Amino acid sequence: MTVPLARLLVTCPDQPGIVAAVSGFLRNHGANITALDQHSTDPEGGTFFLRAEFTTPHLDLTAGALEAAFERVVAGPFGMNWRLAYAARPQRTALMVSRFDHALLELLWLWRRGELHTEVALVVSNHDDLRAEVERFGVPFHHVPVTSDTKPEAEARQLALFDEAGVDLVVLARYMQILSPAVVDRFPHRIINIHHSFLPAFIGADPYRQAFERGVKVIGATAHYVTADLDEGPIIEQGVARVTHRQSVADLKQVGQSLERDVLARAVRWHLEDRVLVHENKTVVFA
Amino acid sequence: MTVPLARLLVTCPDQPGIVAAVSGFLRNHGANITALDQHSTDPEGGTFFLRAEFTTPHLDLTAGALEAAFERVVAGPFGMNWRLAYAARPQRTALMVSRFDHALLELLWLWRRGELHTEVALVVSNHDDLRAEVERFGVPFHHVPVTSDTKPEAEARQLALFDEAGVDLVVLARYMQILSPAVVDRFPHRIINIHHSFLPAFIGADPYRQAFERGVKVIGATAHYVTADLDEGPIIEQGVARVTHRQSVADLKQVGQSLERDVLARAVRWHLEDRVLVHENKTVVFA
Amino acid sequence: MTVPLARLLVTCPDQPGIVAAVSGFLRNHGANITALDQHSTDPEGGTFFLRAEFTTPHLDLTAGALEAAFERVVAGPFGMNWRLAYAARPQRTALMVSRFDHALLELLWLWRRGELHTEVALVVSNHDDLRAEVERFGVPFHHVPVTSDTKPEAEARQLALFDEAGVDLVVLARYMQILSPAVVDRFPHRIINIHHSFLPAFIGADPYRQAFERGVKVIGATAHYVTADLDEGPIIEQGVARVTHRQSVADLKQVGQSLERDVLARAVRWHLEDRVLVHENKTVVFA
Amino acid sequence: MTVPLARLLVTCPDQPGIVAAVSGFLRNHGANITALDQHSTDPEGGTFFLRAEFTTPHLDLTAGALEAAFERVVAGPFGMNWRLAYAARPQRTALMVSRFDHALLELLWLWRRGELHTEVALVVSNHDDLRAEVERFGVPFHHVPVTSDTKPEAEARQLALFDEAGVDLVVLARYMQILSPAVVDRFPHRIINIHHSFLPAFIGADPYRQAFERGVKVIGATAHYVTADLDEGPIIEQGVARVTHRQSVADLKQVGQSLERDVLARAVRWHLEDRVLVHENKTVVFA
Repeated sequence: MTVPLARLLVTCPDQPGIVAAVSGFLRNHGANITALDQHSTDPEGGTFFLRAEFTTPHLDLTAGALEAAFERVVAGPFGMNWRLAYAARPQRTALMVSRFDHALLELLWLWRRGELHTEVALVVSNHDDLRAEVERFGVPFHHVPVTSDTKPEAEARQLALFDEAGVDLVVLARYMQILSPAVVDRFPHRIINIHHSFLPAFIGADPYRQAFERGVKVIGATAHYVTADLDEGPIIEQGVARVTHRQSVADLKQVGQSLERDVLARAVRWHLEDRVLVHENKTVVFA
Repeated sequence: MTVPLARLLVTCPDQPGIVAAVSGFLRNHGANITALDQHSTDPEGGTFFLRAEFTTPHLDLTAGALEAAFERVVAGPFGMNWRLAYAARPQRTALMVSRFDHALLELLWLWRRGELHTEVALVVSNHDDLRAEVERFGVPFHHVPVTSDTKPEAEARQLALFDEAGVDLVVLARYMQILSPAVVDRFPHRIINIHHSFLPAFIGADPYRQAFERGVKVIGATAHYVTADLDEGPIIEQGVARVTHRQSVADLKQVGQSLERDVLARAVRWHLEDRVLVHENKTVVFA
Repeated sequence: MTVPLARLLVTCPDQPGIVAAVSGFLRNHGANITALDQHSTDPEGGTFFLRAEFTTPHLDLTAGALEAAFERVVAGPFGMNWRLAYAARPQRTALMVSRFDHALLELLWLWRRGELHTEVALVVSNHDDLRAEVERFGVPFHHVPVTSDTKPEAEARQLALFDEAGVDLVVLARYMQILSPAVVDRFPHRIINIHHSFLPAFIGADPYRQAFERGVKVIGATAHYVTADLDEGPIIEQGVARVTHRQSVADLKQVGQSLERDVLARAVRWHLEDRVLVHENKTVVFA
Repeated sequence: MTVPLARLLVTCPDQPGIVAAVSGFLRNHGANITALDQHSTDPEGGTFFLRAEFTTPHLDLTAGALEAAFERVVAGPFGMNWRLAYAARPQRTALMVSRFDHALLELLWLWRRGELHTEVALVVSNHDDLRAEVERFGVPFHHVPVTSDTKPEAEARQLALFDEAGVDLVVLARYMQILSPAVVDRFPHRIINIHHSFLPAFIGADPYRQAFERGVKVIGATAHYVTADLDEGPIIEQGVARVTHRQSVADLKQVGQSLERDVLARAVRWHLEDRVLVHENKTVVFA
C-alpha cells in the first residue's frame, strides 16, 4: 500500500540516538525522507523537536500498522509526543471574520490559487456584510451574531458548525470578538489569530492608535495561537514596516492591513504544512 | 558678513502663510534655502513644524541681527518656538558608557571618519574598562563610579564635567545606570539613550531575555530622548531584525548589538543635524 | 470660487527665491499650503523640484485665472515646468493585464476600498480569462488579443479604447506583451509597469528563474515608468524579500507575487497623488 | 578518546537511506547529534546535502579511525563528498584589505569579542595605511604593494605568507585588486569577497555610482566566493537598504558600508561554522 506523502512530528526529551532511531525506522519500512528538521532546546536535559517529510513509494504496511509499529519501536522507548500527518488528508479550516475583509480575502485568494493546502469548510461571521464575497468562492457563510447576552448560545452555535464541518483549524481573520474558554479549549493550538500590533507591544484594543500615540517608528502584526490569556498565546510569525511622523492613524491601519494579511497567511500556511510545534508558550517553526 | 550654512527650526500653531513668511524673510536677507521640510499635525488647529537649511552667500546682517529681525518680523507674529543652528558651530557631545563597547566604538569610529558632525568632548563611564579604547581616539575619558550611596555625588561630578566641557548633547551608549532628574532636567531632549528592545515592548531590565522568553520572531532596538519616565521618552528611531527559535539569549544579544549601534548612530546623526523636533511625547524626524 | 484641494508640481533650474516666490503667490491668493516638499540635485546649477499641497478656502480667482497668474508672475520668470492637479478631478486609469491576477486584483480591491484616488475606467487584456473577476468590480473589461501579426491593429484598438475613456494613466499589472513606441509615446511617464525582479538585475524574460539560477539570497520587484527601452525606464519603487536555497522557482514566484502587488500599488498610489516627478531617467518621489 | 565537538558535511547523489546511514553510524560510535540540517535539490536524481553537528562524549575511536570507518561504511557506498571539521581546530584566516577600514575593523572587532570562531593569522594589504589599526589587535600586518608590473611577484609573496601562516580561509574585506587565477585556484571556495552592490546588479567598478545613476530605491551588498569569473562566484549572503532621491553617491556609500560589514561578517561566520556548502555556482547555507 502507498501513502504518497506524509509528515512526522515529534517532541520528546532530548537524548542521544533519536535521529538514528527515527530515520532508521522510516528507512526499514521503505519510506524516503525528503526533508528533516530538528531542534533541541538543550542537548542536556532539553526538549527535542523533529519534523520529517517523507514519501512512501514502497511502504510495507498500512498507515495504521505503520503508526502502531512506530509507537512500539520508537516513540514509546523515547517518550515521544508525536503524530503523523498525511498530505492526502488536508486539514479542514474554518475562517472567522467580523467586518474587515483584507485578511479573509487574502486567505480565500491563496486557497483558490492552490497556495494553501486545506479545505476551507466554512466562514463564520458576527456580521452579514461579507456574505457575497465569501459565497463567490463557493464557501458556505454563516452569520452568527454575538452580543454579550447571546454569547454562550452563539459560541455553542459556532462549535456545532465546526463539529458538523469536521474542522481541524480555526483562523481568526480579524474576528473582533473574544472567544471564551469553551471554544478555546476545544481547539488547543488550533486557533490562529492575527493581532494588529507587534506583540507584546500594544496589547488590547485599537493598537494602531496606541502605536500612533506612542510615536513608534516601526509597526507590526503578530500571528499567534489563541490561549486563555488574551494576546499572550505562542507567537507563530511577525512582520514589521517602517512608519513616520507623517502618517495618521488611518495611514497606519492601511500599512498595517498589508502586514496583517501577509503575516497571517504565512502562519496559516506553516500550520497547514505541519511546520509549527508548540513548546510551553513558544513555537518552533520549521519554515 | 557670511554665515556659510545654517538651519532654522520652527514649531508653532498652524495657520496660513507660515512658509511664505519664513521663505520670504530668508529671501529678503540674501539666504538661499537648500532644503525645506514641513509637517502639520492638523491644518486646523494643529501644530506646525519646519526645518529649513540655507546658505548665506550674501547675508546682509550679522547672525545676531538676523535673529533679532526674524523674531520681530516672523517669529513673534506667528507665535513661533524657534532656533537657528550654525554648521560652523557644531554641538559638543558627551558619551556615557558602562561596559559594552559596541555602541560607543561605533560613534567614535563614525566621528573619526567625519560622519558625525560634532565635537566629542569627553566620555564618562562608571567603569574604567574602556579607557584605553577611548583614549586611542584622543578623547578624554573620565571614570566616575556610581553606587547607590554615591549617586548624588557621582551625578554632581558628571554635571560638572559636562559644564566644564560645554556639552550640548549627552549620548547614553549603553550606560546602564538610571539618571536621576537632577541630570535629566538639565538636558531636556538633549540626552539620547539606546534601549535594547523594540519599545514599548520589553521595558525594563534584560530585554533580550524577555524577548527570548516571549518567543518573538522579530527583535528591535530603540533610540529615544531620556525623560523622567524610564523608557518612556520620545522615540527618535527604531530598527528590527528577524530571529528564530534556534537563537539563544546570547544570539539575540549578538544580533541586537548590531541593531543598537546602527539605530543609535542614526538617531545621533539626525539630532546633530537638527532633524529631530519634539512634540509632546513624539518626534518629528525630517530625515 | 473654491477649489477644495490642489497640488502644484514644479521642476525648474535651481536658484535662490523659488520657495519664497511660490509660497508667497499661493498666500497672496488665499491658498493654504498643507504639505510642501522640495529637492534640489545641486544648489549650484542643479534642478529644483517642488510639490505643494494646498487648500483654497478663500481662493480669489477661478482655477483658470489662478493658473494664468502663476505662469505670468512665478513660472515664467523662473523658467518652470509645472502643473496643477485638482483632487476634485481624479485621474482616469486603464489597467492592462494578461493572465496573472494578483496585481490586478490588488489594485481593484484597493480602489473599491477608496485607497486609490482614481477612476478605473477600463481593463484591457490580451486574454479573456479575468473578465468575470473584473466585471464583478463594475469595471468594463475589453479583450484585445495580440499576436505578432495583429499587434499594430491591436494597439490601435487599445489606443482607441484609451481615448474614448479619457485615460490619464495606464498601469501594466503583469501585462506580458511589449508595448510598441506607438503606445509608449502617447503616454510619456504615464505608463507604469511592474517588473518581477530587482532591476537592473534580471532584465528580460523569466526573472524568477534567472534569480533561482544565480542563487541570490534576496529577490525583488520594481515598478517603473515604461519608456522605449525595455526595463530601463525611471524606477518609482522597489521591494525585496529574503529567500533561501530551500525555495524553488515556484516558491520564488509565490513570494514575488506578494512583492509585486505591494510595490505596484505603492507606485500607482504615489503617481495618482502627484508625488512622482521624473528627471532624466530617475524619479523624485515625495512620499 | 574525546573529540568535544565536530561537524560533518556531506554532499552526494540523493537516494533513500542517507540520513539513517549517517545518523546510525554516529550513534553506533557514541556521537550525539546536536544539530542536523539537510537539503535535496530533488529527491529523484538530485543532489543531497547534510550538515550534522555532534558531540562525542563517548567516542570509541580516534578521529582518524572514525573518519576511516565512515569512509568505508557510509561515504563509500553512497558516493559521498564529505569532510569532518573539529571545533578544537579552528580555521586560520587571512584578511586582505586596501584602504577602506570598515569591513576589516568589523571582522577584527567581532573576532576579539569571540564572535568569530577562527584564528586571524595575518592581514595583507596593498597599502600601509591600516597598519597601526591592525597591529593594535595583535595581528601581524604585511604591506604587499601591487602594481600591474609587480602583480605576479606580489601574489607569490601573498601565497608565501598564506602558506607560512597555514591559512584556511582568505577574506577580501574591501581588497580592491583582482586576484589572478594563481591565487584563486589555490583556495577554491575558500576566498570570500564583499561586493558593494546587490549582485548581479552593478557588476564591476564603482557600483554605488552606478546605483545612483540608475536611480534604484534599494541598494545592497553581496558576499560571495571568489572564482575565476569576477563578481560571478557563488553568493553566500546579501543585504539591502532603502534609499531615496535625496541621497548622493556619498550617502549611498555611507549606507552601503554598514551593509557591507554586516553582510560580510555573517558570511564569514557561517563559513567558519561550516554552514556553507557549494553546489555548482550556488550555495546551500544551513544558517
